Amino acid sequence: MKSDLLSNIYNPADLRLLKEEQLIQVAQELRQFIIDIVSVKEGHLGASLGVVELTIALHYVFNTPDDLLVWDVGHQAYGHKILTERRENFHTNRQIDGVSGFPKRSESIYDTFGVGHSSTSISAALGMAIASKLKGDFEKEHVAVIGDASIASGMAFEGLNHAGVTDANILVILNDNAIGIDPSVGALKKYLTAVKNGKNPKQNNIIKSLNFDYSGPIDGHDFPTLIKELNRLKKIKGPKFLHIVTTKGKGLQQAEENQVKYHAPGKFDASTGEIHLKSEENLPPKYQDVFGLTILDLAKKNEKIIGITPAMPSGSSLKFMMDELPERAFDVGIAEQHAVTLAAGMATQGMIVYCNIYSTFLQRAYDQVIHDVALQNLPVIFCLDRAGLVGEDGATHHGVFDIAYLRAIPNIIIYAPLNEIELQNILYTAQLGLNHPIAIRYPRGRGVLPKWEVENFGHYEKIEIGPAKCLKDGTEIAVLSTGTIGNNVIEALKECSNSDSFAHYSFSFIKPLDINTLKHIFSTFEQIITIEDGVKNGGFGSAVLEYAAANNFKNNIEILGIPDHFIEHGSVLQLQHLCKIDVKSLINLFSNRSK
Amino acid sequence: MKSDLLSNIYNPADLRLLKEEQLIQVAQELRQFIIDIVSVKEGHLGASLGVVELTIALHYVFNTPDDLLVWDVGHQAYGHKILTERRENFHTNRQIDGVSGFPKRSESIYDTFGVGHSSTSISAALGMAIASKLKGDFEKEHVAVIGDASIASGMAFEGLNHAGVTDANILVILNDNAIGIDPSVGALKKYLTAVKNGKNPKQNNIIKSLNFDYSGPIDGHDFPTLIKELNRLKKIKGPKFLHIVTTKGKGLQQAEENQVKYHAPGKFDASTGEIHLKSEENLPPKYQDVFGLTILDLAKKNEKIIGITPAMPSGSSLKFMMDELPERAFDVGIAEQHAVTLAAGMATQGMIVYCNIYSTFLQRAYDQVIHDVALQNLPVIFCLDRAGLVGEDGATHHGVFDIAYLRAIPNIIIYAPLNEIELQNILYTAQLGLNHPIAIRYPRGRGVLPKWEVENFGHYEKIEIGPAKCLKDGTEIAVLSTGTIGNNVIEALKECSNSDSFAHYSFSFIKPLDINTLKHIFSTFEQIITIEDGVKNGGFGSAVLEYAAANNFKNNIEILGIPDHFIEHGSVLQLQHLCKIDVKSLINLFSNRSK
Repeated sequence: MKSDLLSNIYNPADLRLLKEEQLIQVAQELRQFIIDIVSVKEGHLGASLGVVELTIALHYVFNTPDDLLVWDVGHQAYGHKILTERRENFHTNRQIDGVSGFPKRSESIYDTFGVGHSSTSISAALGMAIASKLKGDFEKEHVAVIGDASIASGMAFEGLNHAGVTDANILVILNDNAIGIDPSVGALKKYLTAVKNGKNPKQNNIIKSLNFDYSGPIDGHDFPTLIKELNRLKKIKGPKFLHIVTTKGKGLQQAEENQVKYHAPGKFDASTGEIHLKSEENLPPKYQDVFGLTILDLAKKNEKIIGITPAMPSGSSLKFMMDELPERAFDVGIAEQHAVTLAAGMATQGMIVYCNIYSTFLQRAYDQVIHDVALQNLPVIFCLDRAGLVGEDGATHHGVFDIAYLRAIPNIIIYAPLNEIELQNILYTAQLGLNHPIAIRYPRGRGVLPKWEVENFGHYEKIEIGPAKCLKDGTEIAVLSTGTIGNNVIEALKECSNSDSFAHYSFSFIKPLDINTLKHIFSTFEQIITIEDGVKNGGFGSAVLEYAAANNFKNNIEILGIPDHFIEHGSVLQLQHLCKIDVKSLINLFSNRSK
Repeated sequence: MKSDLLSNIYNPADLRLLKEEQLIQVAQELRQFIIDIVSVKEGHLGASLGVVELTIALHYVFNTPDDLLVWDVGHQAYGHKILTERRENFHTNRQIDGVSGFPKRSESIYDTFGVGHSSTSISAALGMAIASKLKGDFEKEHVAVIGDASIASGMAFEGLNHAGVTDANILVILNDNAIGIDPSVGALKKYLTAVKNGKNPKQNNIIKSLNFDYSGPIDGHDFPTLIKELNRLKKIKGPKFLHIVTTKGKGLQQAEENQVKYHAPGKFDASTGEIHLKSEENLPPKYQDVFGLTILDLAKKNEKIIGITPAMPSGSSLKFMMDELPERAFDVGIAEQHAVTLAAGMATQGMIVYCNIYSTFLQRAYDQVIHDVALQNLPVIFCLDRAGLVGEDGATHHGVFDIAYLRAIPNIIIYAPLNEIELQNILYTAQLGLNHPIAIRYPRGRGVLPKWEVENFGHYEKIEIGPAKCLKDGTEIAVLSTGTIGNNVIEALKECSNSDSFAHYSFSFIKPLDINTLKHIFSTFEQIITIEDGVKNGGFGSAVLEYAAANNFKNNIEILGIPDHFIEHGSVLQLQHLCKIDVKSLINLFSNRSK
């Protein structure tokens, strides 16, 4: 057996000491290293396996970290991390205080730009390239590696449109594997497929038309081709574009064959690829499946119902509806802005549109929510998946700003269900006609109720718009929670010896606020505690403060939520603990708050 | 002289009774009608003059309002409004309670989608088209009219990318006049110019590559060509794209020759086109010019300074720097997302980047501010022009959400100068290095200080980060203002007989809040009034409430600001009055608030 090469590579300088023909072995070892760790520690698999050769080739040909490398999204950057001084720590990937699952400037000089959300790489690399030029550095290369799903997003087009009229040293590498998390969609994808198949007579003209020096498509797994082409491009100044074709999951058969599942497969057998299935019996359902099954059920009964997802059919579980009612369920690709305004356009024609967007990604369409939906008071139903702390994906992905940024917008209803049944019932209620847009925020992962309680579809109850619910009476202190974090309050109060002192109200409606219940609470309890899994600045707690100030209540109000700094990665429980909104912290707090 | 045709057109049904050869006369009359009214009442001129023929042709060929017409941005829709039941009210354009300057659903059945911000039309029209199809209407046409500046924005690309793979009846009309408000930029513009000049050998391939039935370019002022082509397209199902070439300002010589100035020229002579110049002597300068002249001055002394505007060089006055230091001042087109991340990329390389975006348009790049700038704590300097109520542009353009949506974001400093000098000094201070991003928000229009006070550039003073200023002592009540609305407080207190009772503090820093001064205020005054020209939900007042709650202060706090509904168009003074933050309302309030 050959000697181990990877273990002698601390950083790319070591890689560059190798002969080109040794790179195949490095690729084998790197691929196995990724598989070995991800199979045990979990994480994103397929994307990194697909760019093993590209990653090695880039660090081999370019003089990183002086040459600047930006990975779009960053799911694919595990190989990059391992080759750049983080091999020994890579087993801490996505764990609290461990390596981040995405490139991150504070982690390494090789991570030139923090990513997580898609389609930023061209703009960032162009900014770097223009800066280098202004500083008199005409040699430095600035590389953006972007997938075919990400390049179809509007922001990437804006970057290309600008780069094409500059003389900046930017190399855009399109990593074309025809899939993002789910298969890519859209006219550009269709076009790229034609190009790859040699079926487009005017080959590659979109990119050339945007004034780029285009080359490709080439095989992204073939070192000689890759390295020769990168060396050629290295000598060309100005904006360049290389189209490479790769296979997501390359090197692990199951991952190649089932690319959606192996995007982030959880634990699996490193040698066979077999995914370790957890027993799911008797577990509460995922909120995602509650959404997906409910919208399918409702849509079967109401032909005006439409579902939209920007590139997350699997993640959101809209796929259930896409499979059964494809003509009314749309994956529009990574295009949150378009998704929202498309929904608005449909709503003008009387359609009932559920626009499912992860909370963190709705930040991408904030203006469209204001300008195209709320201002026209169109009754679009926003389903904000992965609201609150999302766990291992970390700072880029937490859905913690939504309450604050949505609450500022007139006309919109904001609802955070306490549990699966409330989610199901608000989805039902929304299609009965609210005459307002509504944002329904719910977290990633499993609910809190036994499975049978929510699988009994068709027994929907209409939710009255506005009222909060008293979940528990008490004598001294009122706890006001919004959304599923209220379950932490329920749990904590079960454990507190002084729980009789605490009343608990669930404010599923953040907007409109239930001012009748608030009046009762403020008149009854001197001490009030609010809790939310969103930022405290401007969030639900602030809404309660605004009510109190406007009505001259002088009660003590304590606000629990996400503090004013970015929360990194870790398990949801660990992160809730950092924010002092986990059950344990609440027990401590409650135990100290009353007699 | 021929009989007047326009005065007999109440709506497009009347227009369609005319013979095709009469349309030229309608065009002449419509053009004159627009000129006559805009010359006296002000408004947007050039865009509507450029599409007079297109507007008539569309309503002539298509069966509006059954066929659905979406105007992108809407600056160009005056002719549309006049032909669709609003001729007699058009003299109230942009006035309070009058016709809106933009298409607006609540105003007319012919205004199928409210606009104002650019690049929404394709998504909206596609949503309508898909809805029609689902409802079984395969005949209805859905038309998006979009300019070449707007189609270069990412969101428009997202719409095209989706539309191209549908069989929806959508007709995208590219109104190519090579100019938005300022001249168009970017690789796509360069490409379109080549197409128009017949210089592109693979003509029109970008659009064809996106799977559209492309036709053009044709002369958008020639009725026979236009009508023939629209009639042909009417019969074709699926996504269609028509490229027409027009001249902005068509029909008024000065407007054709000076397209930037005549975009919205103010009052002018309807027959000669001569703009009525107001005497500007001794008026305070515009905040825009304070920005533009200051950044130019600073940039001359510091070669790391860069200016970025997304398509507003004239509006923001970045043009001063673009003229003198073109290599460091960038108009990136209507691409707010790209603008922000480009700035972030530059900042990673040590550049000092002033990214000037209208407050309302920064909503377009909210995620980029969070994900690309604040999360990485990159010291980008956001200059938020047209913050607060903007007046006649109305609900789509007010910059009233920024305080609330920015305050939720960690790491960012938020500053609202009281006046021109503070704006100048914070621009100076920002380039000294803050180690944080900063958002500087200032309003549209003129400041409050005599011109000479701010024209003396080079006498900058460094602003300490954080402290509020006591502008006036008082005995009973503390008024806490942020930004230029504080000048209303100053004025009002001058007029109040009980002004001795009022202290006035200017909190130019909204974040970080000056907690030392707040502690003093809360310890000294029982009654506190906050005032801002932003939304009350989650704004500056809420920040003060959060401070009070966290520190157990029980003072009375009254919050003044924008209420929780959309504010329509009108003069800034009228709209401030509606929100009770004008001088007169403040005098009333203050007079009633103390002994």
